[in-house]
Amino acid sequence: MESSAKWVVNEDELLACCGSTKFAKHMAALSSFSNLHHAVESATNIWFNQVDVYGWLEAFSAHPQIGQSPSSSHVGETFAQWSKGEQSTAMKSATSTTLQELTDWNARYKQKFGFVFLICASGRSTAEILAELKRRFSNRPVVELEIAAQEQMKITELRLAKLFSAKSSTDVATEY
Amino acid sequence: MESSAKWVVNEDELLACCGSTKFAKHMAALSSFSNLHHAVESATNIWFNQVDVYGWLEAFSAHPQIGQSPSSSHVGETFAQWSKGEQSTAMKSATSTTLQELTDWNARYKQKFGFVFLICASGRSTAEILAELKRRFSNRPVVELEIAAQEQMKITELRLAKLFSAKSSTDVATEY
Repeated sequence: MESSAKWVVNEDELLACCGSTKFAKHMAALSSFSNLHHAVESATNIWFNQVDVYGWLEAFSAHPQIGQSPSSSHVGETFAQWSKGEQSTAMKSATSTTLQELTDWNARYKQKFGFVFLICASGRSTAEILAELKRRFSNRPVVELEIAAQEQMKITELRLAKLFSAKSSTDVATEY
Repeated sequence: MESSAKWVVNEDELLACCGSTKFAKHMAALSSFSNLHHAVESATNIWFNQVDVYGWLEAFSAHPQIGQSPSSSHVGETFAQWSKGEQSTAMKSATSTTLQELTDWNARYKQKFGFVFLICASGRSTAEILAELKRRFSNRPVVELEIAAQEQMKITELRLAKLFSAKSSTDVATEY
């Protein structure tokens, strides 16, 4: 008989991975998942083919500006903690000058595109993030929308891995 | 000395061409225009490079579902009249069956994409519009967003031509 651990995830857990309610509902409806790969595959399909543009914008709006902490009352404690963790490399490498420049460019970006600059920040320095922001700033709004959606998917994938890892530890603790 | 008739357009006139306030403000700031070609070129640049995705969605929301009349109190009298005129070929070729099918598919479209099905309807029959709706329905949301933006630009171009033509008649009447 096959060993097929089934991972059950609920809407709140999914909203900590990606702040689109449509995404969370569609994923929760497919739950349970046989493994992380199965969950990521389902999430990718839902995010790019089923979540509409309003859902993408909703997910983007859950993120703080790079360099700032999200309000946990707005997005939940797990989302806020994960967001802080993903930005830890950037924050360690930041100076008051680069942080100020990041704040200024974030404001210009939001003014042009209507949503925050979104990047999978894990492991990236402030200088790298700033260079990427400046490079992407010249894009057409719809091109930038699609890039931001791809970055959101990278973030979602990392967070699903964290979620499954946490669930796995809990299961082990419970079963043995 | 060159003859250079200057066309001045205001925000209200521009909103009748395209219901994005950002579009209307940017265009009005560039007014006046030396000719229709100049206006269309400016409008195309503003629409695709400067109006953000929220502005696109705002413009889409000014349109009625194909087969329905917009409320003139919502979008203004000129927008409503032009919209009705652009759909006249479709309405002449419509039967109660095709109209019902169009209503059903419009609802499915809105459910999937979050905005109304947008098409430059001028000269198109109901059957053509319905076939196009069904074909486009399988697109990814972001692909459909871009197609809808292209259709909106075609509509804007047609309406700018009407606006300039109306202004031209007025000028002639005034000057001679």
